[in-house]
Amino acid sequence: MTKFGEMADRTGRDLFAEAGETAIEDAGIDRAEIDALYLGNFMGELSERQGHMGPLMAKMLGLDVPATRVESACASGGMAVRQGIHAIRAGSADVVLVGGVERMHNMGTTGATGGLSVAADDLWEIKHGITFPGAYALMAKRYFATHGGDREDLAEVAVKNHANASNNPLAQYQTEITVEKVLDAFPVADPLGLFDASPITDGAAAAILVSEGYAAEHDLDAPVAITGTGQGTDDLALQHRDSITWTPATADAAEEAYADAGIDADDIDFLEVHDCFTIAEVLALEGLGLYDEGEAIDAARKGETTADGELPVNLSGGLKAKGHPVGATGLAQISEMTKLFRGDHVNSDAVSDAEVGLTHNAGGTVASAVVHVLEVEQ
Amino acid sequence: MTKFGEMADRTGRDLFAEAGETAIEDAGIDRAEIDALYLGNFMGELSERQGHMGPLMAKMLGLDVPATRVESACASGGMAVRQGIHAIRAGSADVVLVGGVERMHNMGTTGATGGLSVAADDLWEIKHGITFPGAYALMAKRYFATHGGDREDLAEVAVKNHANASNNPLAQYQTEITVEKVLDAFPVADPLGLFDASPITDGAAAAILVSEGYAAEHDLDAPVAITGTGQGTDDLALQHRDSITWTPATADAAEEAYADAGIDADDIDFLEVHDCFTIAEVLALEGLGLYDEGEAIDAARKGETTADGELPVNLSGGLKAKGHPVGATGLAQISEMTKLFRGDHVNSDAVSDAEVGLTHNAGGTVASAVVHVLEVEQ
Repeated sequence: MTKFGEMADRTGRDLFAEAGETAIEDAGIDRAEIDALYLGNFMGELSERQGHMGPLMAKMLGLDVPATRVESACASGGMAVRQGIHAIRAGSADVVLVGGVERMHNMGTTGATGGLSVAADDLWEIKHGITFPGAYALMAKRYFATHGGDREDLAEVAVKNHANASNNPLAQYQTEITVEKVLDAFPVADPLGLFDASPITDGAAAAILVSEGYAAEHDLDAPVAITGTGQGTDDLALQHRDSITWTPATADAAEEAYADAGIDADDIDFLEVHDCFTIAEVLALEGLGLYDEGEAIDAARKGETTADGELPVNLSGGLKAKGHPVGATGLAQISEMTKLFRGDHVNSDAVSDAEVGLTHNAGGTVASAVVHVLEVEQ
Repeated sequence: MTKFGEMADRTGRDLFAEAGETAIEDAGIDRAEIDALYLGNFMGELSERQGHMGPLMAKMLGLDVPATRVESACASGGMAVRQGIHAIRAGSADVVLVGGVERMHNMGTTGATGGLSVAADDLWEIKHGITFPGAYALMAKRYFATHGGDREDLAEVAVKNHANASNNPLAQYQTEITVEKVLDAFPVADPLGLFDASPITDGAAAAILVSEGYAAEHDLDAPVAITGTGQGTDDLALQHRDSITWTPATADAAEEAYADAGIDADDIDFLEVHDCFTIAEVLALEGLGLYDEGEAIDAARKGETTADGELPVNLSGGLKAKGHPVGATGLAQISEMTKLFRGDHVNSDAVSDAEVGLTHNAGGTVASAVVHVLEVEQ
């Protein structure tokens, strides 16, 4: 992945090329072996007047291969990974470059929040003025009312993720924060304040996927196996759901991914989840079956998901502190987890014996979710 | 597919639901059997302020399944078909709903042409004022200079496609035109006039794909086999290409699809190609290997591709007369070809003995192309 942050002097293609070249070099493959490219991007039409990015990005990397852009809002990157896996399993490709990119600091008069709003339901939500900070605020309020918990508990999520990012050179924010600072930050949408929200970020990330056959025939340097993939769907608009504190898209994606990998939730040693807002991390851990409904907020309070807790969550810093260039986030999760497994990450010591990791990438108010299980042998 | 045309009172979701329901009913399946949805859409963010259409469209059809939007400009629909095939071949799904939709008549101040321009290269093309009519005009001029031919030859493509659509109740235009009318039409971008261009269209189309295993176990009514899929890529910007009259994306897609199906170009009995402009049909037939370079223009002049010619092309009326709701076009080709095979189309008599058909869907100035081979046993 590239450095994440505000990069007014970069273009999407430039950022993607950097991530793609880094992935090719890291994998130690000849680019002529790449058979296909899948790209996650959410709003290039709005930020750079640029659609049709599949062929654009392929040619930026000197690749003359089938190249397809996938869009599932903030889950676009994870969905690109899933389509790359499908292409390999379908026998269409042995080596696939999967990547994601987003430029978010050049959104003009609508701002990034206006652009992001197209991931919600225009007829039932956007026309009535609700954007994502407001939508997640509703989810948080309802969660507090149903299950208990308060702003101070959610603040622990932000504090933990900033702590995890504090030595990550690629993270947008490398500064620790305190619960007091989170609580004192100006409100974004009650009960969420500025530090409950992931930032506006430019960046790109990419990975090289290879088939099992290719891996067996080549002496790859520290490969990580993606053993399971799963995807789920929910209503785009909150108002059409039976519950706004339970995310069936995450649950369905997890169920499929666990079955695909042949694991249970209990087997997971650490994970990267989609914490676009602090409440989203809580909902993700429950949807993934790692905590019962209403209990992940206690885990945050008790510190169970910190780097030295029993189940480290978002050791990369998460979307909250690492940054959230939306189309790239699903790939950044894969990139960071790979480094964590390999011992190449500042936080690798926290998971030195880990064998099973999970990435969870969500779109909108979790109308889309995609889960991957990553494994290594220790 | 829905009726194609100008539908100011419809929404994308409404159009897609109609196409999806029609596909489910036609296939005679229970919607509970559908395992996944792939959607082709090009510019919903610009036309309806609506991205993240995968889950939106799934829920419109009462489907609670993985749902993913694919965007490859005007080839988005065909790419959705390809991802659906991958999902089935990968073992992720047995039954997939693939569809496409576009609203193009509500593009505000930029107009549809401004919206479509995001399929070209913003830095190298759009910023300098070239849109697709101009780009294809350059391709046509260069073709004339290299290979011969003139506006009158291209006019035959438009006349043929209007003739084919003249009794097609779903086509946007059901009126025959003459070469004189094409030549006298007001210029769009020299040498192309109004009748060299496909129209601005609203519409949707969908299909149900099933695995071979599912097909063997169920008594399906007149199924058509998709036996080959292929995809190709080229530079987004014309200026980066060695030639602007040869489309390697089409050639690569065809090569892969023919190999996948185990056929040669000679085996093809009829086809639907991406005639966004008259010159595009000529380039497509050459890229697909059905005519040598520089010779497809003669085929148009000689009438070899008319309904009663030796190789009927665009019996549906093509993009030119059937209409071109960009994200839906790849699916409309599949829908029309299925009816042509089954004897359910007004032009079925032209291909009563046909066993092999081909669909060709392109994005931008053919920076993306996707080809499918469809077969039935007669």
